[in-house]
Amino acid sequence: MKKAILLIIDGLGDLPTPKTPLQAAKKPHFDKLAKEGITGLLSPISPFVVPGSDVAHLNLLGYDPLVYYDGRGPLEALGLGMDLKPGDVAFRANYATIDGETVTDRRAGRIDTQTASALSKYVPMKIDDVEVLFKNSAEHRGALILRGPGLSSKITPTDPHDPSGHFEGAHATSKEGAKTARIINEFTSAVRIRLSQAVENQGRQKPANIVLLRGAGSFNTAPSFSTRFGISGVCIAGGALYKGVSKFIGLDIIDVPGATGDKNTDLKAKARATISALSNYDFVFLHVKGCDSAGHDGKFDEKKKMLERIDKELLPSLIKSGAYLIITGDHSTPCSRKAHSGHEVPLLVWGDSERIDGVKKFDEISCMAGGLGHLQGKDVLPLILNLIEKSKKYGS
Amino acid sequence: MKKAILLIIDGLGDLPTPKTPLQAAKKPHFDKLAKEGITGLLSPISPFVVPGSDVAHLNLLGYDPLVYYDGRGPLEALGLGMDLKPGDVAFRANYATIDGETVTDRRAGRIDTQTASALSKYVPMKIDDVEVLFKNSAEHRGALILRGPGLSSKITPTDPHDPSGHFEGAHATSKEGAKTARIINEFTSAVRIRLSQAVENQGRQKPANIVLLRGAGSFNTAPSFSTRFGISGVCIAGGALYKGVSKFIGLDIIDVPGATGDKNTDLKAKARATISALSNYDFVFLHVKGCDSAGHDGKFDEKKKMLERIDKELLPSLIKSGAYLIITGDHSTPCSRKAHSGHEVPLLVWGDSERIDGVKKFDEISCMAGGLGHLQGKDVLPLILNLIEKSKKYGS
Repeated sequence: MKKAILLIIDGLGDLPTPKTPLQAAKKPHFDKLAKEGITGLLSPISPFVVPGSDVAHLNLLGYDPLVYYDGRGPLEALGLGMDLKPGDVAFRANYATIDGETVTDRRAGRIDTQTASALSKYVPMKIDDVEVLFKNSAEHRGALILRGPGLSSKITPTDPHDPSGHFEGAHATSKEGAKTARIINEFTSAVRIRLSQAVENQGRQKPANIVLLRGAGSFNTAPSFSTRFGISGVCIAGGALYKGVSKFIGLDIIDVPGATGDKNTDLKAKARATISALSNYDFVFLHVKGCDSAGHDGKFDEKKKMLERIDKELLPSLIKSGAYLIITGDHSTPCSRKAHSGHEVPLLVWGDSERIDGVKKFDEISCMAGGLGHLQGKDVLPLILNLIEKSKKYGS
Repeated sequence: MKKAILLIIDGLGDLPTPKTPLQAAKKPHFDKLAKEGITGLLSPISPFVVPGSDVAHLNLLGYDPLVYYDGRGPLEALGLGMDLKPGDVAFRANYATIDGETVTDRRAGRIDTQTASALSKYVPMKIDDVEVLFKNSAEHRGALILRGPGLSSKITPTDPHDPSGHFEGAHATSKEGAKTARIINEFTSAVRIRLSQAVENQGRQKPANIVLLRGAGSFNTAPSFSTRFGISGVCIAGGALYKGVSKFIGLDIIDVPGATGDKNTDLKAKARATISALSNYDFVFLHVKGCDSAGHDGKFDEKKKMLERIDKELLPSLIKSGAYLIITGDHSTPCSRKAHSGHEVPLLVWGDSERIDGVKKFDEISCMAGGLGHLQGKDVLPLILNLIEKSKKYGS
């Protein structure tokens, strides 16, 4: 039985200044794979569309976001281990500091996780026939769920976009959202009162005196990965979003101690977990976050070093695993932009008896000449199924 | 008037072990065409989708299988020269040997065509308001048509998928299929009795005592090729399926004596028929089967030899014909997999005044650098129409 590892390096692609981090990195294992495999360039959604990590991952894993995506909230909530029921509306939530109608700190003075956890008892409540559920994660972050009849994701976020921090409350963006907007506004007023009175906030210069919401999404179940594609799969990731996407599509999740989702993540531990998972699963989705964070911070050297760590600490084990390797990114995060971009990401496929092109290095420029050409995110799962001979034939 | 020949080499693409059959073959004419023409790689449906020959041919000939395909049965029946009426449900059929509820030989001991023909008088019958029509072809094979009101293709095949050979009968896969499943099951019981008593089966160790059905498809007419594309076309092929596809889309069919659809097919006769057809038609669809069969049998040398025969016995005449040549496959059938795969097939376009790329050989690896890039099956007919200046302009 053939098996496959899909390694998604978050924010992999970059722009040349004059080299890209991939071009500048010392990466003998990436280049060995490029030389012995076949390469190309991938638009995670379609050419030049700038994707969020949520829709990019859904698409790469075979779930068209136009069908299966309705905001990041449900994916974050699932990733934090919350249970969702169809009809629930979920949000990304964060503690913040508000003074009058101005949000003065979106992160409540980068509140520590312990205090945030202690405050979390003040958040859940019931408003009319709607239950409000909450779970905090690291620091100011968390997820919030509304559960009750007649809810909708057709509302504006309460987290201000405006750098002035002007707080507006939620508005319905269509008629269906009216009830949800009202519930959110009542919740926000109530939680402000509770948090302002909380002993845990006494003496804090930046009290966590409001919970801001964004990424509203209505939850609906999706058909499972194994039912749709006929293979068993598992996710190994640090970040909540990637676990949430995996839980949503019915992949199992292996929690790896030390897989932190940041630049200090224990890549060797992730490699060991991947090898071990291959005895139980046909397919491993392995996610590494650090390059994206470095891109967002504009830190070229940090992104380059992360790639070198992946080359040294992760790839040797994967190469010895006996599985087919598919390596790509969910989008580009150029250091010069400090943001996601719509540039293609390099794509590499390596394994026994596959066609081999003439590309000898794994980077944005070399892969332009790759034998796979220019692919789109939706092509990745068919590619993997064909590789491990698990495609369902169309026609006869 | 410009004319075009579309040569489809069934199962053309392969994987390197370490060369592909195309790379290993001595094929000066293929390579001359690559050198003087333009090349690329083609996904017969979309990237990495594994196609059956039926849907692939429809797509290459400009008929979207999502619109025009409902199972292989009607195409096989048409290919055997049976007439179909809208609403008919047709199947691929084969004589088999059944013992109790176990199919012990799917091919009834590879029954000879003469005995199979003699048995065919026992198969047609009328059940309630449904007529059952049957025609045998070579050996155990044939096609069966149900004609009557309220029929549907929404039923399971009676040919067991299970290697155990457990026979189940037909089940409706949706409400519409209920009547058809019942008719099929009554037919199967009746034909078992008739065949078991047939004198032609006396003394046979593996009696042909059941007719198994698969590939159910409901027949509907399609708009004709000449109406849709404004050119006249003809098919030259050995196999029933390819003639059936052609009949379905309204191509004329030239039966070539010696075009057997196997490795011994008379390629020179097919070449002569092609040249002759060019005086009456704008477009010739020329099909060669042998490479696919060799791939299914895992016979690398046989596939290589078939390619060498095409190079030697077919291409020289086509080159001299004065027509544009478009050469590709309907899918890959790698010898190492003994099955269709989702890998691209090489594509070659050759003719007067067309653009020329730098590719000098016709194979899976060389064509990665082709000037046509990566195309899909749906692009082939527009390519041909553009080549011979018969495109209908879009806009004005």
